[in-house]
Amino acid sequence: MDLVTIDDIRNAAQSVANVAIHTPLLPCPWADGELWLKPENLQPIGSFKIRGAFHAVSQLSAERRAAGIVTYSSGNHAQAVAYAAREFGVPAVIVMPEVTPAVKVEATRRYGAEVVLVPSAMREIEGERIARERGMTLIPPYDHSDVIAGQGTIGLEIVADLPSVQVVLVPISGGGLASGISTAVKALHPTAKVYGVEPELAADARDSLRAGELVDWAVEDRYRTVADGLRSSLSPLTFEHLRRYLDGVITVSEDQIRAAVGILAREARLIAEPSGAVATAAYVFHSDELPAGRTVSVVSGGNLDPALLASLLV
Amino acid sequence: MDLVTIDDIRNAAQSVANVAIHTPLLPCPWADGELWLKPENLQPIGSFKIRGAFHAVSQLSAERRAAGIVTYSSGNHAQAVAYAAREFGVPAVIVMPEVTPAVKVEATRRYGAEVVLVPSAMREIEGERIARERGMTLIPPYDHSDVIAGQGTIGLEIVADLPSVQVVLVPISGGGLASGISTAVKALHPTAKVYGVEPELAADARDSLRAGELVDWAVEDRYRTVADGLRSSLSPLTFEHLRRYLDGVITVSEDQIRAAVGILAREARLIAEPSGAVATAAYVFHSDELPAGRTVSVVSGGNLDPALLASLLV
Repeated sequence: MDLVTIDDIRNAAQSVANVAIHTPLLPCPWADGELWLKPENLQPIGSFKIRGAFHAVSQLSAERRAAGIVTYSSGNHAQAVAYAAREFGVPAVIVMPEVTPAVKVEATRRYGAEVVLVPSAMREIEGERIARERGMTLIPPYDHSDVIAGQGTIGLEIVADLPSVQVVLVPISGGGLASGISTAVKALHPTAKVYGVEPELAADARDSLRAGELVDWAVEDRYRTVADGLRSSLSPLTFEHLRRYLDGVITVSEDQIRAAVGILAREARLIAEPSGAVATAAYVFHSDELPAGRTVSVVSGGNLDPALLASLLV
Repeated sequence: MDLVTIDDIRNAAQSVANVAIHTPLLPCPWADGELWLKPENLQPIGSFKIRGAFHAVSQLSAERRAAGIVTYSSGNHAQAVAYAAREFGVPAVIVMPEVTPAVKVEATRRYGAEVVLVPSAMREIEGERIARERGMTLIPPYDHSDVIAGQGTIGLEIVADLPSVQVVLVPISGGGLASGISTAVKALHPTAKVYGVEPELAADARDSLRAGELVDWAVEDRYRTVADGLRSSLSPLTFEHLRRYLDGVITVSEDQIRAAVGILAREARLIAEPSGAVATAAYVFHSDELPAGRTVSVVSGGNLDPALLASLLV
């Protein structure tokens, strides 16, 4: 299996330069130790997903791109593909689980995409059917080398902006973000440690890495966590990256995730969705499981219902 | 009267480079027209004030600095001076109005400063008394060339990052931020327009610029607005900068300020305090009073009580 290389990620950095923000590393005087946040919630669509989606669309031939893009996603990749398609002026169809928060559905439609709602377990099958029947190209949310390379540009920026970084904390869902970042960080700075972070209620990556093979969790189990962006499972491709590059997985409780959303709001003035707050939850509540040292926590996204946010602030 | 120059601001940029974030310009796909946000709420202390305070402290002789710093402030400058003093390892005393939100008092104490609470009208007198009696140096919140030069570094960054900028929107309180930014923008890009933004309930800068001389508003009038960081009055020094460089003043209502806090939270994933949201309120609700074109709105700070934020989200 071919893994993504640092050169792939450098190429992706060129293609995303005009669409993704080079997010700053934000120092955290409120935290114990030395912590910086990488606020990917500030991307135009509110998450890191713009990097991988835009790069993947940019790599298509003009002809294939013009025929349109289709994807399945629990939300942030959906907005990313819709946004990227609009940037290129091509049609997009997004297949979403029926349980997707309304704010994510509306945001996707706002970028001009057609949204198809299906039962959660059906989304991949339905996405593939639409691609086949309409002659569109499927851009999956993480099981794709160009998507992984795009997400890896975050790792390039972390090492460029903080060459002395010692620990990087990254949320894991399908594993595209963690695959890309760990590939970049280990290539440029092999002694830095990269940890994945998962909800206790969706810890299939931890179980897979322990077992040395993909371990699947039932959909109804994975869908319990409030971190609605972290309910996917690894693919063979992302598993191979994580097996090679990741130093470990930290799991965080639902209470810790909710608390971290409030901490990021009050202390860092950032609105993070629960999925975007798990790495910070690991830093704050699981320091005993992590090496000490200069740490970067990736705040991966910030799309959540305002009522949920309000309930976590007070 | 000597005004701050672009060279002063370039010097300030060197001194703040290691303490202030070079905040990115965030594009706003949710806004009509072409808007970027300059999120100074992401600075380590949650506001732009770190720039001016740190630069002013850095310009003192080592001997004067070691004797300590004192200031009076409604909050964000207080945290900035406390943070700067801690960076230099010198003592700081902060005189604050009794009505300051608790979150700002606590944050200031957290940086190791001594806080003295006094009636609002007494803060300058008390600050000067402490400076005299303890032999400390007073760093005022805006009536100081080094403070203005520090705030002006925001203008340098705006023009560097968006050379085609056409309109810049800046909150006005005592006028240090608007003086610094307008000086920088007009020096580097004379055709760009710079507008100040004030609450309708604290529109003394508008009145002063109309009258061609400083017009004072009574403290009890200025203190009505929810934008607690915008209750100060211009000084002769800031008035001269604004008279020379500002293209106009937009005033915004209390409802518009509150709405803009919610918009920034939901759409841009940024937590802005009411004072930090006024420039965005002007863009969203007063486009008829502004020239069209590529606009940068300065989000100046993000320190507010979580309960107030929660109430503005739903």
